[in-house]
Amino acid sequence: MPPLRTALLQSSGRPGQVAENIEVLERAAARAAQDGARLLVCPELFLTGYAIGAEVPALAEPADGPSAGAVAEIAARRGLAVLYGYPERAGERIFNAAQLIGPDGVALANYRKTHLFGCFEREWFTPGEQTVVQAELDGVRVGIMICYDVEFPENVRAHALAGTDLLLVPTAQMHPFQFVAESVVPVRAFENQMYVAYVNRTGPEGEFEFVGLSCLAGPDGTVRTRAGRGEELVTGEVDLLLLSASRAANPYLDDRRAGLYGSLL
Amino acid sequence: MPPLRTALLQSSGRPGQVAENIEVLERAAARAAQDGARLLVCPELFLTGYAIGAEVPALAEPADGPSAGAVAEIAARRGLAVLYGYPERAGERIFNAAQLIGPDGVALANYRKTHLFGCFEREWFTPGEQTVVQAELDGVRVGIMICYDVEFPENVRAHALAGTDLLLVPTAQMHPFQFVAESVVPVRAFENQMYVAYVNRTGPEGEFEFVGLSCLAGPDGTVRTRAGRGEELVTGEVDLLLLSASRAANPYLDDRRAGLYGSLL
Repeated sequence: MPPLRTALLQSSGRPGQVAENIEVLERAAARAAQDGARLLVCPELFLTGYAIGAEVPALAEPADGPSAGAVAEIAARRGLAVLYGYPERAGERIFNAAQLIGPDGVALANYRKTHLFGCFEREWFTPGEQTVVQAELDGVRVGIMICYDVEFPENVRAHALAGTDLLLVPTAQMHPFQFVAESVVPVRAFENQMYVAYVNRTGPEGEFEFVGLSCLAGPDGTVRTRAGRGEELVTGEVDLLLLSASRAANPYLDDRRAGLYGSLL
Repeated sequence: MPPLRTALLQSSGRPGQVAENIEVLERAAARAAQDGARLLVCPELFLTGYAIGAEVPALAEPADGPSAGAVAEIAARRGLAVLYGYPERAGERIFNAAQLIGPDGVALANYRKTHLFGCFEREWFTPGEQTVVQAELDGVRVGIMICYDVEFPENVRAHALAGTDLLLVPTAQMHPFQFVAESVVPVRAFENQMYVAYVNRTGPEGEFEFVGLSCLAGPDGTVRTRAGRGEELVTGEVDLLLLSASRAANPYLDDRRAGLYGSLL
């Protein structure tokens, strides 16, 4: 099985401008497909922007809303899967969500952020209640979480126990927390023996300063591709043969002693 | 309260030569005390050596055996606490253990490694059953684990939930796993908001090649002191004021959602 070529769109698009962000996504999808990618990952709340404050309710859409339709068309036209962050409306509630659309334009999975970060998110969003959301893509078991979620080792371990091969993490990672992008993400990949694609916004937005540094980290702890601080589209490969060999050499899931971890609940 | 000055003895001593290793420990304790340290941390199985194979049963001692007495005398003479790794005999069973002796020569805590690594350890040692072992030292809540234990995020999280300020980790970290010393240890300190003192052996021993790189990592993810690859005594400070400020800025323990982590058990 050939490696799954994965493109990371590090961009803040145009906060508040949904139509323009879909255009940015379309151009990135075209470039990624031309580069042989089968999957394009966009940042947290890419569809609308992150620092949109009171605009959240007006810009939120259901998982099958018009923007989902537009992304599905792009995915099908370019023949690659797309994961994008967006504010999801579900009745009266709004979730900080990320949806995965398959290369045929069919929605594969929708994840609602379980660990909200800071005052802005807690004011506007309802936390999700399902830690592990997965889908299959070209034989790779793909999982989804969002930003702060990945900083909790418990969340990523739950994915490892559920067999996630590649964890997709749209993020809005801000100064001064770049240690997460630089160090926590590669360690999560290593300690759980999986790939982690961490895809960030960039530059100033409202009160925040996003740090970029998107990366695809491998199960051996090495970073396969790493963006800088600015807008960038980077690509890396998810290799199930390398993953399998690394898991044999680092049997953390076999060696853990679940019976001793009761205090974590 | 002044910071707790902590000395890390990166040394393999003389494998198989207990009396010589106690002499190495004594010289290190003298230098550390002179440097103002209140705590000296030695590597895994420092008392006997790591790659001693079939010598384990002959060299194992009870927690209150003659070597414990010799270390207690050193601690009391120099007025600093000492943590040392040793093979602990308890009836028919032998544990890969680490004992903390207080600056007055009184034993404060004894930990038995819960996560044994590789064939050698599984052949000779019984795994411990208690994850969190702690003691108080100069107002700092000190915890103990050994080597492979720290690679499991669940173990360190259990210490964080139990209030550990400074986690002491004697280790025998070997090539090609230096990613653990370089990256996993600082991430453990950051994600759990504690200090971690990781103290390694060095150089070749039997079939192993230990990588050194002992470090004291702080709750902000920065490394306060880091040894090279060879024999070395390095010192760093554990500052409860810095720890308190870092915990307020990084409220991981408040923001975790224990109700979602059921699959980890």
